[in-house]
Amino acid sequence: MIGIKSIASYVPVAGVDNYAQGAKFEKDEEFILGKIGSAFLPRKDAGQETSDLCVEAANALFANNPDLKRESVDVLIVVTQNGDEEGLPHTAAIVQDKLGLPTTVAAFDISLGCSGYVYGIYAIKGFMEAAGLKNGLLITADPYSKIVDPEDRNTTMLFGDAATATWMGENAPWQLGKAKFGTDGSGAPHLKVTDGVFYMNGRQVFNFALLKVPAHLHELLADSQLTADDIDAFCIHQGSAAIVDAVARRFEGEPEKFIKDMVETGNTVSSSIPLLLEKHVLDSDWKRVALSGFGVGLSWGSAILYRP
Amino acid sequence: MIGIKSIASYVPVAGVDNYAQGAKFEKDEEFILGKIGSAFLPRKDAGQETSDLCVEAANALFANNPDLKRESVDVLIVVTQNGDEEGLPHTAAIVQDKLGLPTTVAAFDISLGCSGYVYGIYAIKGFMEAAGLKNGLLITADPYSKIVDPEDRNTTMLFGDAATATWMGENAPWQLGKAKFGTDGSGAPHLKVTDGVFYMNGRQVFNFALLKVPAHLHELLADSQLTADDIDAFCIHQGSAAIVDAVARRFEGEPEKFIKDMVETGNTVSSSIPLLLEKHVLDSDWKRVALSGFGVGLSWGSAILYRP
Repeated sequence: MIGIKSIASYVPVAGVDNYAQGAKFEKDEEFILGKIGSAFLPRKDAGQETSDLCVEAANALFANNPDLKRESVDVLIVVTQNGDEEGLPHTAAIVQDKLGLPTTVAAFDISLGCSGYVYGIYAIKGFMEAAGLKNGLLITADPYSKIVDPEDRNTTMLFGDAATATWMGENAPWQLGKAKFGTDGSGAPHLKVTDGVFYMNGRQVFNFALLKVPAHLHELLADSQLTADDIDAFCIHQGSAAIVDAVARRFEGEPEKFIKDMVETGNTVSSSIPLLLEKHVLDSDWKRVALSGFGVGLSWGSAILYRP
Repeated sequence: MIGIKSIASYVPVAGVDNYAQGAKFEKDEEFILGKIGSAFLPRKDAGQETSDLCVEAANALFANNPDLKRESVDVLIVVTQNGDEEGLPHTAAIVQDKLGLPTTVAAFDISLGCSGYVYGIYAIKGFMEAAGLKNGLLITADPYSKIVDPEDRNTTMLFGDAATATWMGENAPWQLGKAKFGTDGSGAPHLKVTDGVFYMNGRQVFNFALLKVPAHLHELLADSQLTADDIDAFCIHQGSAAIVDAVARRFEGEPEKFIKDMVETGNTVSSSIPLLLEKHVLDSDWKRVALSGFGVGLSWGSAILYRP
């Protein structure tokens, strides 16, 4: 059974002071910390491509795991909607070359946004098991600094650049339990890029998250024959402090089990959940956590991770 | 075990007379038929989006399979590098809405070109088995008419628009055997889009295909403990007549087992292999076929399909 062996990340050191940015839009510190949730938004260097963020995260993973050899990697999936090139080639091919991975690797991109990590872990596990492969890298890197208009008050205070790399393989300490997914393309216009610039209808996205996510988590628990008491922590997409708080309240369990950690990262799209897992879950003594990602598409996915 | 239950396609009726187009570049009928391989190149209507091609192919699949209900579809994967929007949202979400599929569907795009179908069948099978899902649609639609410059003699005579839809599910007549994959991002510059226009170094791609594909098929057969005698037909990506002929010769088996059928379609990118399967394989009395897709990335993948 393929599971999660290790996670590493890359968060650029440079970035934007969100208090200063908020002041420009007449937003005070209470708004920035309480509603947005992020005092600092990491930003990639102008010369860094999406593939470079992937390489940084993967190299951190290799450094942390001397038993993971480049030559033993046989799958590489990059979750992104802001890859290096215009549609083609896929970013994963560029990452294969920059990382010096063997040419026997199966590499492709998955196009998903904030729900991407939950889909991605099942996609890579499934692909590996279906094709008989042993060591996979699931990389998330969706630098919204490429598409966010710094003059758009609805988006420029929210998003941070980051990348994560997850080692998927046998004998993993964390296994994938049940998962549930959802898609509603009628909400596609709420988050989209036009002429290179990102647009988000924040109110619609907030309402969607509040309507879908708590109910979806309850359905997942019921399908898994679990209750909220069986879950040590909820790691949901860090869309904003307001969204995490509202989902936690609406869930009507123990809101303190919903991890909120975006002060120094912002909303890092598909990297937000693996950043939580890396920092709070993988080395914990917790037994079982629930994930939920939601966003562009509209798309959502929720899953249980557990120690076997 | 999830396998291939049915395949349907959509090939636009309108298109380009490739003899007339060839004459413009002083290419005669022998070149067009013998080297390019396509007398006609289907072209989508200017008003048709990629998602519309997906919908046409999926609706043909539903029409052919009354036992496949929209409400029972729980996964939808679109293989494309020329989706509807600029990066986000993903085309699969738009297709979910246009097809009227339930919002419980898991939907995402896979970014791959001519190797995409071989990867795609393992990705969707694996995802379904990992997440416990029952009925999946794997759709290919990569309309190169969006990016090909009609004045570029290296590409405009090659590509045709098409879409295919594959129903993946239980109790399927065709199962997936062993597969092998490969990626060489150092060749990424040989096929790419810059400022909205596609560029291909045809000579490099031809050499790559000739170097990789016959050897890859032999390795796949050896790994599967099969010989070429055990294979009823080879369905390789229809890049051009010259590529299919050269790969078949270099393979040094029975070249007549390599199906060549692109006269009325051109190179349809990730749709070329499922078009062959739909037309020549699914209703045949063959027992075992080999696939190989290769192209942008560079990326390649080969697999065995068999009747259980």
